[in-house]
Amino acid sequence: MTITRADLERLDADDPLAPFRDRFDLPDGVIYLDGNSLGPLPRATRDRLRDVIDREWGRDLIRSWTDNDWIGLPARCGALIAGLIGAAPDEVVAADSTSVNVFKLAAAALAMRPGRRVVVSEPGNFPTDLYMVQGLADLLGPDRVELRLVERDLLTAAMGPDVALLLLTHVHYKTGAVHDMAGLTAAAHAVGALTLWDLAHSAGALPVDLTAAKADFAVGCGYKYLNGGPGAPAFLYVARRHQEAARQPLSGWMGHAAPFAFDDRYAPAPGIARHLCGTPPVLSMTALEEGLKIAAEADLAQVRAKSMRLGDLFVSLVEQMCGPEAPHLVSPRDGALRGSQVSLAHADGYAIVQALIARGVIGDFRAPDVLRFGMAPLYVRHTDIWDAAAHLAEVLRTGEHRQDRFQARKAVT
Amino acid sequence: MTITRADLERLDADDPLAPFRDRFDLPDGVIYLDGNSLGPLPRATRDRLRDVIDREWGRDLIRSWTDNDWIGLPARCGALIAGLIGAAPDEVVAADSTSVNVFKLAAAALAMRPGRRVVVSEPGNFPTDLYMVQGLADLLGPDRVELRLVERDLLTAAMGPDVALLLLTHVHYKTGAVHDMAGLTAAAHAVGALTLWDLAHSAGALPVDLTAAKADFAVGCGYKYLNGGPGAPAFLYVARRHQEAARQPLSGWMGHAAPFAFDDRYAPAPGIARHLCGTPPVLSMTALEEGLKIAAEADLAQVRAKSMRLGDLFVSLVEQMCGPEAPHLVSPRDGALRGSQVSLAHADGYAIVQALIARGVIGDFRAPDVLRFGMAPLYVRHTDIWDAAAHLAEVLRTGEHRQDRFQARKAVT
Repeated sequence: MTITRADLERLDADDPLAPFRDRFDLPDGVIYLDGNSLGPLPRATRDRLRDVIDREWGRDLIRSWTDNDWIGLPARCGALIAGLIGAAPDEVVAADSTSVNVFKLAAAALAMRPGRRVVVSEPGNFPTDLYMVQGLADLLGPDRVELRLVERDLLTAAMGPDVALLLLTHVHYKTGAVHDMAGLTAAAHAVGALTLWDLAHSAGALPVDLTAAKADFAVGCGYKYLNGGPGAPAFLYVARRHQEAARQPLSGWMGHAAPFAFDDRYAPAPGIARHLCGTPPVLSMTALEEGLKIAAEADLAQVRAKSMRLGDLFVSLVEQMCGPEAPHLVSPRDGALRGSQVSLAHADGYAIVQALIARGVIGDFRAPDVLRFGMAPLYVRHTDIWDAAAHLAEVLRTGEHRQDRFQARKAVT
Repeated sequence: MTITRADLERLDADDPLAPFRDRFDLPDGVIYLDGNSLGPLPRATRDRLRDVIDREWGRDLIRSWTDNDWIGLPARCGALIAGLIGAAPDEVVAADSTSVNVFKLAAAALAMRPGRRVVVSEPGNFPTDLYMVQGLADLLGPDRVELRLVERDLLTAAMGPDVALLLLTHVHYKTGAVHDMAGLTAAAHAVGALTLWDLAHSAGALPVDLTAAKADFAVGCGYKYLNGGPGAPAFLYVARRHQEAARQPLSGWMGHAAPFAFDDRYAPAPGIARHLCGTPPVLSMTALEEGLKIAAEADLAQVRAKSMRLGDLFVSLVEQMCGPEAPHLVSPRDGALRGSQVSLAHADGYAIVQALIARGVIGDFRAPDVLRFGMAPLYVRHTDIWDAAAHLAEVLRTGEHRQDRFQARKAVT
């Protein structure tokens, strides 16, 4: 059955999440489908940052560490994130980058499984997760760490007595495919292995229940669906049952049991705080906290329902509007198996993304041929999906993307 | 000879650095002597951050990575820092925290000295430097790393054939005592060891010449004398002669030779860029860049001359005004051996610092008994030093600090 724009207008009118759009400062004339890469600016964040800059830094200066509780930022952000990922407030903390946090927790997990050296992941996982384990393996040597990449349908079968850790990104950055977190965690546990889940494309985008899945460790990113701002600090999760045993090697002063005692000997803080390392970037972490406050207000079941609906509609509309020219679908067609993005493949993918950006439809490109469109339900409207698909069809129909100005690659896309 | 306030007014009138004070947004009624812990807000930073928040993030969104060159921030900041520490622009990059950077470079140095396992530092060094090496030692085991703490007058004698790395903070965080960087580096090199200098209390405060000292590695902090804002990203230096050999274990995607190729295999970027790890916190790093631009305009010889003069005056005025009640001097009396701070010891140090803060004189306290007063020459006036010493004398004379409200310790000072 053909979908009409009027259908989508009705969906917008009935959308319980529609009011959230006003919480963001979205530029006019832009359809922003790249919240899976960088979430937009929340209005409250702008105001809060002005206050942090002018009053907390400018007026209160060093006293803000206590008087404005800068020192509490990592735990406060962690508690807000916990509510989005099925964790307790004292199981999550904001710190460093996703990369650094992968290193911390992969090292901690390996130390908890002496005699085992294999970290299993999948080829094509987000590269930094693999790179950090490679760095750990280079540091510790092949006797202590081996990174083993296994295609996703063979992961369960790859669980064996030499596996210390299963490291996966819950929602694949390129395809949006969702792993069965509970099933794979159970498979890992069945052989005595631990799990480390990268929630970069999950947190804030769909319900995650680390507790129900019995996950051991997790990390994630603050600047995508959590709308924490460019390069926002990341987070990490350690299940409470592991908090006493888990020791991470980046044992900086902020993770010390008494940071301001200035002892020569490191003593890890109790609980999740031992996973902090250096001084947190206060401006960036403040922006993260404001983004998280918005996410915490949304009903994640509504978010997920709208996200699947937006994705389903986009898939249908691309096929309806583009006809036989339609780029082929890379993401799972079944919304339940797909995160909050739709990825398409086309040989001219880079140029098509550039042509769409020139029309105000912002998605992104991932080599070699993938067009990614993020469907962040807090600010993307159903009609935006119609308009985006219509622009895509128009680009393909006119061959607009073949213009030279859209062909030249920039260093970063 | 007795110093008068009129003497200091004359020094302010003749101060070539006096115009820099207007570049900072200092609160009224405050004498800020804690720039060694958190530099104040530069006026340009406030404006730049508004533009980054409203336009670069809010309007340009994801395109800012290229169009506003967010991706170039770590190198741009690095090049500005290089000019302050006697390095070439391509030998320095801004990244992560000082703690994380110590880990990277200590690991890199150990790998470059196979068969040696000793990292020499001094007891009472800034704790996080020691903690990071302890974390590395716990990870690699005692066969590969031993942290050996040696009192500072025995450091040269402690250099031996088992030493891989000498790790020291150039200006001691608590006492302000300055190490002989060139001499100690030569002593380390004489036995085949490498050096890693922590410049947290040096960069921007006094001339540092890593090249002349033949230093191998360095790290430092962005939020003290570089005025980069609370928790600003840190930096690291790798001498060009080591850049090919130096491999650090936190091998994240931003340090990859081709981050946006999304290969499964890590391949280090050429040069200093391989020491990047995850996505940089753009808001915090933008603030750092603005602070650095101001530091880059100042003549470091003038900065050093004024810093020593301020410190000498403070030492003299405390003794002149406080008489036999004067807290005793912890820092070297010889300005040439002292960084840009004066540290005093007093059994009631904590309460005295609190009483001074209540009077608008902001220094800080370091356990067990040290009062620190930072003399950042870009915004501290000679008359501020007079006034600060006068307040200290008045607090001691009246016993004001014995009031209950100044005695109760806060969790963070």
